Amino acid sequence: MKFTNMFMPTTKETPSDATLPSHQFLVRGGFISQSGAGLYDFMPLGKIVLDKIRAIVKEEMDNAGANEMLCSFVTPQSFWDESGRSSTMGNELLRFKDRKNAEYVLSPTNEESVVNMVKNRITSYKNLPVNLYHINLKFRDEARPRFGLMRGREFLMKDAYSFHSSQEDLVREFNLMEETYKRVYQRLGLEFRVVEADSGAIGGSGSKEFHVLANSGEDTIVVCPDCEYGANIEAAVRKKRHFDAWFENTNTPASMEKVLTEDLKTIEEVSNFLSVSKAQNIKAVMKKAIYDEDSKPVIFFVRGDDELEETKACNAVDALDLVDITEDELKDAGLTPGYCGPFNLPQGTIFVIDSELENEIGLACGANEEHYHFVNTDLSLVKDAVYKDLITVQEGDSCTCCGGKLEYTKGIEAGHIFQLGTKYSEAMDAKFLDENGKAQPFIMGCYGIGVSRLVAAVIEQNHDEKGCIWTKETAPFMVDVIVSNAKKEDELNAGLKIYEELKSNGISTIIDDRTKERFGFKMGDFELIGFPYAVVVGKKLQDGLVEIVDRRDTGSKIEIAIDEVATKLKELI
Amino acid sequence: MKFTNMFMPTTKETPSDATLPSHQFLVRGGFISQSGAGLYDFMPLGKIVLDKIRAIVKEEMDNAGANEMLCSFVTPQSFWDESGRSSTMGNELLRFKDRKNAEYVLSPTNEESVVNMVKNRITSYKNLPVNLYHINLKFRDEARPRFGLMRGREFLMKDAYSFHSSQEDLVREFNLMEETYKRVYQRLGLEFRVVEADSGAIGGSGSKEFHVLANSGEDTIVVCPDCEYGANIEAAVRKKRHFDAWFENTNTPASMEKVLTEDLKTIEEVSNFLSVSKAQNIKAVMKKAIYDEDSKPVIFFVRGDDELEETKACNAVDALDLVDITEDELKDAGLTPGYCGPFNLPQGTIFVIDSELENEIGLACGANEEHYHFVNTDLSLVKDAVYKDLITVQEGDSCTCCGGKLEYTKGIEAGHIFQLGTKYSEAMDAKFLDENGKAQPFIMGCYGIGVSRLVAAVIEQNHDEKGCIWTKETAPFMVDVIVSNAKKEDELNAGLKIYEELKSNGISTIIDDRTKERFGFKMGDFELIGFPYAVVVGKKLQDGLVEIVDRRDTGSKIEIAIDEVATKLKELI
Repeated sequence: MKFTNMFMPTTKETPSDATLPSHQFLVRGGFISQSGAGLYDFMPLGKIVLDKIRAIVKEEMDNAGANEMLCSFVTPQSFWDESGRSSTMGNELLRFKDRKNAEYVLSPTNEESVVNMVKNRITSYKNLPVNLYHINLKFRDEARPRFGLMRGREFLMKDAYSFHSSQEDLVREFNLMEETYKRVYQRLGLEFRVVEADSGAIGGSGSKEFHVLANSGEDTIVVCPDCEYGANIEAAVRKKRHFDAWFENTNTPASMEKVLTEDLKTIEEVSNFLSVSKAQNIKAVMKKAIYDEDSKPVIFFVRGDDELEETKACNAVDALDLVDITEDELKDAGLTPGYCGPFNLPQGTIFVIDSELENEIGLACGANEEHYHFVNTDLSLVKDAVYKDLITVQEGDSCTCCGGKLEYTKGIEAGHIFQLGTKYSEAMDAKFLDENGKAQPFIMGCYGIGVSRLVAAVIEQNHDEKGCIWTKETAPFMVDVIVSNAKKEDELNAGLKIYEELKSNGISTIIDDRTKERFGFKMGDFELIGFPYAVVVGKKLQDGLVEIVDRRDTGSKIEIAIDEVATKLKELI
Repeated sequence: MKFTNMFMPTTKETPSDATLPSHQFLVRGGFISQSGAGLYDFMPLGKIVLDKIRAIVKEEMDNAGANEMLCSFVTPQSFWDESGRSSTMGNELLRFKDRKNAEYVLSPTNEESVVNMVKNRITSYKNLPVNLYHINLKFRDEARPRFGLMRGREFLMKDAYSFHSSQEDLVREFNLMEETYKRVYQRLGLEFRVVEADSGAIGGSGSKEFHVLANSGEDTIVVCPDCEYGANIEAAVRKKRHFDAWFENTNTPASMEKVLTEDLKTIEEVSNFLSVSKAQNIKAVMKKAIYDEDSKPVIFFVRGDDELEETKACNAVDALDLVDITEDELKDAGLTPGYCGPFNLPQGTIFVIDSELENEIGLACGANEEHYHFVNTDLSLVKDAVYKDLITVQEGDSCTCCGGKLEYTKGIEAGHIFQLGTKYSEAMDAKFLDENGKAQPFIMGCYGIGVSRLVAAVIEQNHDEKGCIWTKETAPFMVDVIVSNAKKEDELNAGLKIYEELKSNGISTIIDDRTKERFGFKMGDFELIGFPYAVVVGKKLQDGLVEIVDRRDTGSKIEIAIDEVATKLKELI
């Protein structure tokens, strides 16, 4: 390809809302162009990168035996009513009516479509398993689209859906997909981590995320430096901590007692007053849980030194969302803000206690009475107690696998695999006959890769202050032959000769043959666009020499004889 | 690929609404699956065919120097307001609001998006021309989606947009695209015709359509058997016909005269009464023209033996649509149904006269007065007359190029190229600086191929009563190795050996290795799916023989020695 034959408009202007390097450099490098809020066009260079990533994903999926298909992007809302997600997906699910007032959805994912495709077409266990995938547009009506391709509304996703006759076979495919995904990210040249994850709106039991490590990542990942453990903070677990049951530093009574704690509301104040540690106190976090048709006050009890993890909390009460609750709303529900504890709550109050507190004794907590706390409690006496993991794992907490000290890192979610089970097949009555001739719902898995997001993730992990630095498998072209002054016939001819030679050696090459641009400008474009290598044809041409610049090695240069360029580049690549 | 590793559910059931062979066989052969009105999923076999067609289109576009990009499918309605198409595209343009009540459109085509992409990025004639294309989903909210992939609402289209600094350069690219398109259809193995076309809602001046010839085509094409002339009936022209100016068979007066024609309203009745031919009469066709914000009665005058061509008529009065008008509406407008003519019309009446009648003399027409006609008229005397081509060319009319007798044929529109000119660049203020430093609107062309429609078009042209017959370039697999009884180890092994050998010879091959299906069923699937060739491994295996079946040659069979199969197939292919 020649610069003069390609529309690749670079610019010095950074969009005002572009905070991430990938957003800035992909726009400035002429890869993408914004068409609306969360909507991007791929210009020719961006399209090449997108296609390279897409091709690797396809190849690895095909190698794993999956079948490519293509679901319609517009789907009838009836599919979503059948699965129940019309109501659970909230405003991210974009709905619209056609000219006949029939209701449709812009697919944000396609579980329903694929169940519909397979239903009544696979009727026997003999035709299972099958794994169907497509690489297609998706739309999620994000409340706050931002970060360029990272959190757009329209995006390209590879989503696969597998169907099985047994849980064991699902696990086999799930593991195969994990290996397949690892190969994809490895081939893309990315540093990544596979972590335990929350299943979110997709549902199901086990799920894993694939994170591209980058400082700008929106997700906090908890990793163990001593073993393989890694989890999204939304799903991370830690070793149960131990605290002395009886206060060593106070002369506490032998059983639960109510203590006047006038005007002391915070954990800090109460702990100081009772001379106990924050961990020996129970903290009440009060929220309003949003359900399909109503909302209710909910209380989460965690150790005084822990923080509530909202995704875990939301899952614990099966809510669509958790929002802040006002003091008036709490009082209307008969609750006592500042003095709330798990004992003697008004009847019907929804509350969950963090698992670490199960059957703990000797802790302090609010007495559900203005100005009073209980001390020396026994949580096994709480009526109808529900215990669930609710807390945010903190750096320094211990790994459940090996006891190592957990650390935080930042990641970009670039893939997610789920063991769905029968959630969708049951809801949509999609069944097969098992070996005994009995109708059973399909056991399903689903597997997603954010293809367009990966374009940005590569740059988040690989850039410097000058621009993009593409990995070998993602570079739009591997080599940029820069003709310093293309008005000079000998330079242009030498450049074209090298260009043809590299191409005939199978090296994807572009030549900067623009006559009106100066060398500095061309070099700037090379650095901004981020081709892995440049061959600079300039003044030393009279000595038969050109320069090879390695963009990935902070622009290091080698002088080399013209006829050794191809050999040297093949060696480098 | 093996049948046992692929989801390819064939069925004997034909969808109740499937009238076209392509619709029936693509569903029955497991290529596509309907997900909603005008919405189709491609199952794995269908996806392979779609990708093959897509790849050929991409290759030819790239060879022609076009740059692939990708516009967002969802576009802001503001684009469409700017170009003016929000109002002119009517209900086919699907609009919706997002969660913030902002207005968007599901793109039916992308002129606006691409102008937006190029605007301010190409600022000088030095960076022209450029041709940008993408292969992306489109959505048109058809009033009556039907015929499977032929007239769906969501479909895959290749659309290209070129930008030029001169009309000559546009014509050069337009011709290049015509040649490129011809190569695409030739490579796909299709019989097609390039014809003159109406530009429709896209606009612009010159346009050509590419029609795949098939009896089931929705479009009537007028072709000349003696020369290259071809046109969509909406745009077809014929040689001007000649009729004697003075009635030979009546004793007519020397100048226009009003004649009592009591209760004679039709052309037939009036012609008989006046003893003139229908062609010597003027027929008034009255319609209601729909405009953006209102509607008006319009009258079209054509020869009594001609029929009005509605697309031409609609264009002639710049209307969005033409609909029937009631007698009351005509009377309200001061018109006299049955007695309407071009003389003495109420002031302000919109009317157009067919070009063939320009300055004709001696014709009869309505007198705009109940029960009266004029005879012996002189059309050059009609005030404010507008003459335009309004008529439907009929079989037997003469070719304007060579005088040959024009014929009708049926075609499926599979491509359309337009010389747009400055329609969009002017509306959207997209300009470049010309050689004199003066700002000029881009001169544009646009070029579309219906990629998913071509999947159906191939089958409309290539099928028999048993099923699909794919052309070599579109076949999902070239050869189907049918193992008659895959439970017999020797047959299965021989089949697998042939399968591997064909693959290693670069022949795309699938093996029907299903153990529970009988030979007849497998043969039925071969015929329904329509692979070009089958290799049947059956009883003659003990003699070292297998059969090659040619699906395209009505299933002709050759017996051949196993070790000659690959050589023979390479020869056939």
